[in-house]
Amino acid sequence: MNKAVKTAITPTRAENYPEWYQQVIKAAELAENSDVRGCMVIKPWGYAIWENMQRSLDAKFKATGHVNAYFPLFIPKSYIEKEAAHVEGFAKECAVVTHSRLEAGPDGSLIPAGPLDEPLIVRPTSETIIGATYAKWVRSYRDLPILINQWANVVRWEMRTRLFLRTAEFLWQEGHTVHATAEEAQEETLRMLDVYADFAENQMAMPVIKGRKTDGERFPGAVDTFCIEAMMQDRKALQAGTSHFLGQNFAKSCNIEFQNENGQLQHAWTTSWGVSTRLIGAMIMTHSDDDGLIVPPQLAPHHIVILPVHRDEASRAAVQTYCESLRAEIAALHYAGRPIEVAIDGRELRGGEKAWSWVKKGVPLRVEIGAREVASESVFTARRDTGEKRNLSRGHFVATLPQTLQDIQDNLLARAQAFRAANTVELDSKDAFYAYFTPENKAKPEIHGGFALAHWDGSAEAEAQIKKDLNVTIRCIPLEDNGNGAGTCIFTGNPSKQRCVFAKSY
Amino acid sequence: MNKAVKTAITPTRAENYPEWYQQVIKAAELAENSDVRGCMVIKPWGYAIWENMQRSLDAKFKATGHVNAYFPLFIPKSYIEKEAAHVEGFAKECAVVTHSRLEAGPDGSLIPAGPLDEPLIVRPTSETIIGATYAKWVRSYRDLPILINQWANVVRWEMRTRLFLRTAEFLWQEGHTVHATAEEAQEETLRMLDVYADFAENQMAMPVIKGRKTDGERFPGAVDTFCIEAMMQDRKALQAGTSHFLGQNFAKSCNIEFQNENGQLQHAWTTSWGVSTRLIGAMIMTHSDDDGLIVPPQLAPHHIVILPVHRDEASRAAVQTYCESLRAEIAALHYAGRPIEVAIDGRELRGGEKAWSWVKKGVPLRVEIGAREVASESVFTARRDTGEKRNLSRGHFVATLPQTLQDIQDNLLARAQAFRAANTVELDSKDAFYAYFTPENKAKPEIHGGFALAHWDGSAEAEAQIKKDLNVTIRCIPLEDNGNGAGTCIFTGNPSKQRCVFAKSY
Repeated sequence: MNKAVKTAITPTRAENYPEWYQQVIKAAELAENSDVRGCMVIKPWGYAIWENMQRSLDAKFKATGHVNAYFPLFIPKSYIEKEAAHVEGFAKECAVVTHSRLEAGPDGSLIPAGPLDEPLIVRPTSETIIGATYAKWVRSYRDLPILINQWANVVRWEMRTRLFLRTAEFLWQEGHTVHATAEEAQEETLRMLDVYADFAENQMAMPVIKGRKTDGERFPGAVDTFCIEAMMQDRKALQAGTSHFLGQNFAKSCNIEFQNENGQLQHAWTTSWGVSTRLIGAMIMTHSDDDGLIVPPQLAPHHIVILPVHRDEASRAAVQTYCESLRAEIAALHYAGRPIEVAIDGRELRGGEKAWSWVKKGVPLRVEIGAREVASESVFTARRDTGEKRNLSRGHFVATLPQTLQDIQDNLLARAQAFRAANTVELDSKDAFYAYFTPENKAKPEIHGGFALAHWDGSAEAEAQIKKDLNVTIRCIPLEDNGNGAGTCIFTGNPSKQRCVFAKSY
Repeated sequence: MNKAVKTAITPTRAENYPEWYQQVIKAAELAENSDVRGCMVIKPWGYAIWENMQRSLDAKFKATGHVNAYFPLFIPKSYIEKEAAHVEGFAKECAVVTHSRLEAGPDGSLIPAGPLDEPLIVRPTSETIIGATYAKWVRSYRDLPILINQWANVVRWEMRTRLFLRTAEFLWQEGHTVHATAEEAQEETLRMLDVYADFAENQMAMPVIKGRKTDGERFPGAVDTFCIEAMMQDRKALQAGTSHFLGQNFAKSCNIEFQNENGQLQHAWTTSWGVSTRLIGAMIMTHSDDDGLIVPPQLAPHHIVILPVHRDEASRAAVQTYCESLRAEIAALHYAGRPIEVAIDGRELRGGEKAWSWVKKGVPLRVEIGAREVASESVFTARRDTGEKRNLSRGHFVATLPQTLQDIQDNLLARAQAFRAANTVELDSKDAFYAYFTPENKAKPEIHGGFALAHWDGSAEAEAQIKKDLNVTIRCIPLEDNGNGAGTCIFTGNPSKQRCVFAKSY
């Protein structure tokens, strides 16, 4: 292998995966750390990807009968204390508002003043404040179901943060629904898990495993937590979305009661489900390469960028005109339900620098237009996913453009599926399990196994032991068992109903 | 007048305008107060109107070259202290985060713990935190302009709150731009003012006056504040949007410097501009009547609701089929760039109750379908704005539907324009001015004048005096003087360049 091959991103994935991730974000201008500890600035290119995620998810939520609403940013301390497991999970790291103004102190600098009677928590999640509101709305079975989603910012005072993956403030959506029966609430929980899996696979081109969390990994206050788990290119798992069946826990702590058809008063059943800007981190780590970001066409802010190449002044006007007419022709086309987004980059930069800036930003297709292309009514086009470069007649290029974008989308999904398949094994002994997750080279701890499918009997002790020994967790108990069926726990020798997914994780 | 005429909203506008406003919001299920002081819950119908406002404004921002991004919720205390006028304006009422967790206190209840080294302010507006970020982004004139908008929540610890009009937390957008020259920044400031006026008139059907604020009414830290002012049905003014030319004030306090084309380092020029969920309050008070909300079609969550009327069981299935096919036919049509939103209300309620629920929610058109309409291939339709009810052939109704919606939109604007014209006077003496703004009936202080156009020489004393005496303020110095030109200040007798708009206000 030619060691002189230069990549746009330094270090490469193989050299230093965590640092590669940071450098991809920087090179693509997706986000940066702010001066406020743990809070990020989402830059325009990153935010445009989030907007595309929002648009697609929002349409799916509405298609499944949900409406949006907005609830307060602040949660009174007494609300969050109501559900014991919940407060245990969130009180340890939260932003606490204690004062309502600043005023000049003895030395003239401003100090907090106007102390609040009750401290307020900046929402880390909204089950308690939304539950308190629902308690006022629900009287009768006729008021149910309530199917509401909220797009919002939330704050969790994480100690170790990483852009998109774990930040003190992040953007997300949180669905909160109320139902008359456990069955309906359970159906809703799984319906939204399916929505997330559909979005992950079809918009993000990211294959996911749908499954149930173990008791130890449940959302604080939930009866059952379901998740979608994806494999990143370092073979670690990333939890990309969760859907919780909350049983009657929050209905009881928030007092959501209704009269059923027989006139009896009973507690309702609730769910909550959410995905966040963490998905942008998942997208980066699923598709990007050593030249930077790769954005699946369904989420791309620009699908295509046209780069005019001016080799001499004589053809400048003709190239410009050709680019403009090509842009107009492309902009009239649609892909995946929205107009194809096309930009001309007319900056006066050296050609290579300009093209590389779009490589690093992950635009699916680049088109270079110079005098030669004008003369031959053609385009010189490069695919970001494969690097393939072709000279095509303009007519053919335009006519096949929506299909080309879908080909790129499909290729990214297929590539991610193949990568996951190549790094997933069934393991049937504890020794094999420990060997799989022990890095061959201690200097490169990121080089370990991948996903291990193994039998487990539900033992919390075994779960704790592998976390301690290997930093491996049970990502989920898959909903689809692929016909594997029952077996023997590799840790205890007891019977096991099905294999679970084990991995190191984000 | 028949005193027995019942209205859906009690009290009526004439009886008690402020209470009517609250009752319209309640009846339309737009929002409610939460248990968190000053923070509102925006209910699905209110939020859907906000989503339509967002979609329309966002498209206008993008059409004028802006992109969206996201900046931290928290502002370090030291940042907000940097601009003297700015901190003076916002420190008095702000949410202060002082701790990073809750832990069990001596009595077992949770108390704030993990004190922060520096308190954080929940953003009341983001000039300082965004400015600090821009200072890192801007190096050269080539980096300019920066044209960024943010959709976000902000918090101002207002003592007296009112749904939508003044709440502790509200949703808004804030544009923050950076330019190389004062001229470009001034152009941007006025461009965005035009965008707001265009939105107010064409989407909200709300006529506005564009103008400049007096020195006393400027945004804290701005060189020039421009605004759009609308007249509510109690003839008070409501500031519906503002656009600020910030000069170099924030560039200096945040240190936003760039090298110009001559290689010299200089401070940039910045602007900021925003509208908020307050616009929903403005919409309510511009159009609604004593039967509840009226939503302009451009902002309506549903344009049309179809009400099946089942007078007997024999025709039930036929009515249902007819409604479904009518809905499908309508849903294929577009109005104002989006599919016409149509719903069938199949609830088993008495007909009157069902129809009134949609009257109160302000849906532009209702359609009732019974056996008679099925038999005659017709629809029975009612307009919310005029109350007009007609029996139309189905074909004609569907064919003219987009135009009918635009007629409603136009009628609402024309009605609001006529109302404003009828309640705007030119006044040329101080006596006439005081008489105009003195309620004829002290028991009904809301019955006062309206907008007064009068000459003023810029005297801050006169401005303060009328505020003290009459609670009247100068809403703006209009950008379009309508050829009135110079005159004599009615308070001081000094020369005045043009008339200003005076009014009581929200």
